[in-house]
Amino acid sequence: MEYQEIISLVQDEIEQTSYKGYPSELYEPMNYMIQLGGKRLRPVTTLLATQLFSGEISRAIPAAKAIEVFHNFTLIHDDIMDKAPLRRGKQTVHEKWNDNIAILSGDTLLIEVYNHFLEGNYSNLSEILKVFNRTAIEVCEGQQLDMNFETRNDVTIEEYINMIRLKTSVLVGGAFKIGALVANANELDSNLIYEFGVNLGIAFQLQDDYLDCFGDPQKFGKQVGGDIISNKKTFMMLKALEIDSTGELRNRISEKEFDSQEKVDSVKELYKKLKVDQKAFELMNQYYAKGIQSLNQIQSLDDAKNKIIRFAEDLMKRSS
Amino acid sequence: MEYQEIISLVQDEIEQTSYKGYPSELYEPMNYMIQLGGKRLRPVTTLLATQLFSGEISRAIPAAKAIEVFHNFTLIHDDIMDKAPLRRGKQTVHEKWNDNIAILSGDTLLIEVYNHFLEGNYSNLSEILKVFNRTAIEVCEGQQLDMNFETRNDVTIEEYINMIRLKTSVLVGGAFKIGALVANANELDSNLIYEFGVNLGIAFQLQDDYLDCFGDPQKFGKQVGGDIISNKKTFMMLKALEIDSTGELRNRISEKEFDSQEKVDSVKELYKKLKVDQKAFELMNQYYAKGIQSLNQIQSLDDAKNKIIRFAEDLMKRSS
Repeated sequence: MEYQEIISLVQDEIEQTSYKGYPSELYEPMNYMIQLGGKRLRPVTTLLATQLFSGEISRAIPAAKAIEVFHNFTLIHDDIMDKAPLRRGKQTVHEKWNDNIAILSGDTLLIEVYNHFLEGNYSNLSEILKVFNRTAIEVCEGQQLDMNFETRNDVTIEEYINMIRLKTSVLVGGAFKIGALVANANELDSNLIYEFGVNLGIAFQLQDDYLDCFGDPQKFGKQVGGDIISNKKTFMMLKALEIDSTGELRNRISEKEFDSQEKVDSVKELYKKLKVDQKAFELMNQYYAKGIQSLNQIQSLDDAKNKIIRFAEDLMKRSS
Repeated sequence: MEYQEIISLVQDEIEQTSYKGYPSELYEPMNYMIQLGGKRLRPVTTLLATQLFSGEISRAIPAAKAIEVFHNFTLIHDDIMDKAPLRRGKQTVHEKWNDNIAILSGDTLLIEVYNHFLEGNYSNLSEILKVFNRTAIEVCEGQQLDMNFETRNDVTIEEYINMIRLKTSVLVGGAFKIGALVANANELDSNLIYEFGVNLGIAFQLQDDYLDCFGDPQKFGKQVGGDIISNKKTFMMLKALEIDSTGELRNRISEKEFDSQEKVDSVKELYKKLKVDQKAFELMNQYYAKGIQSLNQIQSLDDAKNKIIRFAEDLMKRSS
């Protein structure tokens, strides 16, 4: 199946996903969140991996749904924790309803994840669930680390990379690996596609951090400079703090009152002066290349592999 | 195995359950909650059901743990929603840490539930998980209904019974049924033990409501009269509102300021005058008898069945 067809298939399948039950206060928020849109990257990766290992794509659809539903569960609960008012330009669940409903409808979505896995009737269900559970727990660990880092002033670059690996990247790796398991890929190949996904995920998050500063506001879709305004300890921030001997950045961070646009502009200028934008780009490319190296070790048809490379390239050419 | 031995076995097993991982902000609350104690009724029921159907008790331990861990997950999240400061006389997780940590450590416990089921290496894993997922979702539905009822003034007795069935009783039924499935019981028997558990659970909750009003403060362990003070729409409250033609109870409910002890005393007196205490007792006995009827239809050794009846009798003779 062509790459664009897979995207359409996933979008159709997710669009048709609707939970029915009583009371509506529980089910409406679940359906609202699932139908809020998004690029559906994770379920696409699952289907691509199943195809890579010559599995039947339709067999992977329940697993792909499970992973997308899990991702949506994390968004509902993360938005409560981050007190985020908006998600994809619309009200978050806890804003539209309330915190309690957001907790409980999130919990119910997490249970539905496992129902989707069961719908697949997978002969290796327990193997698939072991990979999924480990991944899901790591995502929780990543979210907890992210919260811990907000109040810590001694976060290292190594810790930051580990945090984004857990919070974002292992789910990309897990989504690929589960697609491979649906196709009954062997252990070596399943681990290689997992490594590919994790490194691609880290590269993707580093790019996201880069675009948060230097992206085109028209194309990026989020407020450019948000990380700078909130003093988020990204790679660029941590690297700049490490090499800035003037103390200028440390001063900007400690300011209680400031003009947002002026802060964004001057920190961006400092980043360029210290060349941390370039360093972020280099690090991103390193992780991307490391991922491709794992992919290249997989014994598979070049055609199927090229579809995955095209997906990865698309992902990394968003808007700079 | 004797009934008391089963209780000791479950308590030992739960005591040894400890989750290890990083960061500690995620794992400490999980272990704190699991080690907070409790009667461990639900895992005991799972083991009793496995024994009833001549299964090996040790095979049921992972499933029993899963069910107890799920129960603890619901307590963490319910306590956030109810803003409860104490649980079993100790600080709740969100009080000891904070709401975000309570959300996230609860989420992680819910994922660990499925790891426990996987530890069991059950040949009928998907059948077990289908029963579990349905039960777990119903528990969430019950919690949502309970929250809805707080702000509604037209709750019927039928709706109340349905709410406690979902919030409390299906998990007792599910715990029994999963124990039966571990022993590969047939569908008819698994459904009969489920019905037994659900009806026992409803009887248990009606007794809990009764004891909340009329229990011995020394033995009950909770504040006697709490439901009356908070105007909780229990069976007795709803029944009393239905038959009280004087409007006295309606007046007491609408009071914004009142002396707690005086309110408790006079509402209890009214309950006795209207005989709703007796009606609650009768309804409780009806559900209990209905449960025993299901149990009696199961083809099994009398000895194993008697152990379950002894468990049920113990449960219903707490403190009146």
